Amino acid sequence: MGFEITIRLPEWMDEYLEWGRPYATVEDRMRFAIELARQNTARGTGGPFGAAIFETETGALVAAGVNLVVPMRNSVLHAEIVAFMVGEQRLGSYTLAGDGRAAHELVTSCDPCAMCLGATLWSGVKRVICGADREDAGAIHFDEGPVFPESYAYLAERGIEIVRGIMRDEARQVLAAYARTRGTIYNG
Amino acid sequence: MGFEITIRLPEWMDEYLEWGRPYATVEDRMRFAIELARQNTARGTGGPFGAAIFETETGALVAAGVNLVVPMRNSVLHAEIVAFMVGEQRLGSYTLAGDGRAAHELVTSCDPCAMCLGATLWSGVKRVICGADREDAGAIHFDEGPVFPESYAYLAERGIEIVRGIMRDEARQVLAAYARTRGTIYNG
Repeated sequence: MGFEITIRLPEWMDEYLEWGRPYATVEDRMRFAIELARQNTARGTGGPFGAAIFETETGALVAAGVNLVVPMRNSVLHAEIVAFMVGEQRLGSYTLAGDGRAAHELVTSCDPCAMCLGATLWSGVKRVICGADREDAGAIHFDEGPVFPESYAYLAERGIEIVRGIMRDEARQVLAAYARTRGTIYNG
Repeated sequence: MGFEITIRLPEWMDEYLEWGRPYATVEDRMRFAIELARQNTARGTGGPFGAAIFETETGALVAAGVNLVVPMRNSVLHAEIVAFMVGEQRLGSYTLAGDGRAAHELVTSCDPCAMCLGATLWSGVKRVICGADREDAGAIHFDEGPVFPESYAYLAERGIEIVRGIMRDEARQVLAAYARTRGTIYNG
């Protein structure tokens, strides 16, 4: 048979997954990622992080993810990783780049941790838009791992643009709300 | 329903997944990880990388993974990530540490890339044993991403021991064999 692992997105996400719906501006896209993080916290289906993938030019929604570490008992399932998996499954490809495809971007409610920043490189996205930052995550005891200025430079040299601090205040309010509810800080 | 992603290990792995079987020495454990990499290449079920998780003290096999990026069309599915997911599903926990659990270690046929090194931190393993190195992977055009000496130091400071170069020659022979068969170098 082969050992199987099934990852299931929370049912409430169905109404947010209107594939192809255009999100015109960077702020529209970030608002969507933050809303996913907020809903995930409010509904108790995971950590306070949301991410989505869009076609950069058209703003068409290609994929979305939320942090599912605790409910799925899987340390890999950060919002960004889930979004990459969803996007690649939808496109039927292990990369969102190449084959004359439109350029894709990852929009995430918080700076990617070391794992997710590495994953960004392999996903084929050409731009990363971040909301809250490493310090905001650290303030509620989420470790971001070994991410250094050279890490960002490494991605930049390979043609991946990183834009940080978009709607940071709104993004970190979700983190603060999560901390107040005493959600599990699973890698503190 | 909720969007679903199913990850299935190749059927041939079934005969290798004898849970709890003890692998006494570090070399026994590495030989197993390398054999998974070799089989994955020979059977055409993915990239030339294998990984396994053991209880450090007893050597009991807890999890195993191979690179499934191309067959599963999923850039996240490096051997180490697959092994973490399998181990956490088997233990029913998002961490292999804590709760009075035995210490676990990751044994991987090649130095973890930036994504997998970050994932190591979140997995709860206390030791990482590596075979082939970054240069060996680079020699056949696999990029390892932003991993720096400070990255290893970051893990060491958090109590994760990293041991590199175990059975390196045998491990890189698998990489060389893969390159000769012109396997897909999906992030070159």
